[in-house]
Amino acid sequence: MVRHVIEFWFDFSSPYAYFASESIEQLAAETKRAVVWRPFLLGVVFPKTSMAPLMQMPIRGDYARHDCDRIARLLGVPFRLPESHPYAAVKVSRAHYWLEKYRPQHVASFAHAVFRAHFADGRDPSEVSVMADIAEALDIPSDELLEAIERDENKAILKQRVDEAIGKGVFGSPFFIVDGEPFWGWDRMPMMRQWIEKGRW
Amino acid sequence: MVRHVIEFWFDFSSPYAYFASESIEQLAAETKRAVVWRPFLLGVVFPKTSMAPLMQMPIRGDYARHDCDRIARLLGVPFRLPESHPYAAVKVSRAHYWLEKYRPQHVASFAHAVFRAHFADGRDPSEVSVMADIAEALDIPSDELLEAIERDENKAILKQRVDEAIGKGVFGSPFFIVDGEPFWGWDRMPMMRQWIEKGRW
Repeated sequence: MVRHVIEFWFDFSSPYAYFASESIEQLAAETKRAVVWRPFLLGVVFPKTSMAPLMQMPIRGDYARHDCDRIARLLGVPFRLPESHPYAAVKVSRAHYWLEKYRPQHVASFAHAVFRAHFADGRDPSEVSVMADIAEALDIPSDELLEAIERDENKAILKQRVDEAIGKGVFGSPFFIVDGEPFWGWDRMPMMRQWIEKGRW
Repeated sequence: MVRHVIEFWFDFSSPYAYFASESIEQLAAETKRAVVWRPFLLGVVFPKTSMAPLMQMPIRGDYARHDCDRIARLLGVPFRLPESHPYAAVKVSRAHYWLEKYRPQHVASFAHAVFRAHFADGRDPSEVSVMADIAEALDIPSDELLEAIERDENKAILKQRVDEAIGKGVFGSPFFIVDGEPFWGWDRMPMMRQWIEKGRW
């Protein structure tokens, strides 16, 4: 095997990605894979498939709100949709890739903190003060992080990753790729596990 | 309990509904429920949520074709998308509700036969000759069935069911309702089973 990873593509503002983020590391550990955290921007990808933000869609949005509440109860994770939902995840995503490059040991904990700030604590991670709080709590210098997300280098990395997502056919969040095999949706994680454990069927 | 049923809403032309149809009776038996087969028309429902036929959507269609192939292999059911896909399920759906009213013992076997004619045998159930073949194979008088699907009474029943689907928030196929609880998608059948077995969580 060349690549023992699970690519975990997500938009930080996606509730189903939040649920996935709470169990992907366990799934990866049990299947002997490493998680590659790959934030992208649904706002860029959605127009290519004529989709819109889920919670704003008629009928489907109502279902999704109800569905997220029952999934949260099932998983036992805190969850509420804040008024700031959905937020633009551009800056936190740039911060993510800056961390990946310069402070990779913080990637997973930062991602969890961003998801939880929004979906558990009702905060808006697109606000720099929220991002600064998250950084400080993880001993990441917030001034460095806030400076980094405005640098062209880090803007370019995110753009590259979004293009990569589009190139790989990623159209929703969460979206997993395992040895080239795509799995869309939180509810496909059991199938992904089966795929890894059985190999191609 | 007043209602010990699983409402199984589907469009006959939906591949994920076909997969669901191949296991819904076993799930129902194991959870001590009766299946209520409820065909409706995605073509009427989709515009309300700005959706389009899945296989015709860019990117998502490619994923769905790949996904259906692997699900079929996983389940061990024959599957191929015929050139006639997607077909208009209006007439077979009218036939379904006519059977429900006058020959209820044929409802499930007719539904299976329609699904398999399209997804296993590559036929187009919107053609009256195909419908006639399906009827004859089940000892349903095909002349009566073909006459019934043009009667206003049976057109009205289908229209009523489609309105009912819309009223209940059904927006995709398959879509299950259990004691008022909605589950969208083939991949949510395990969650539905859990819901029934655990009760509300």
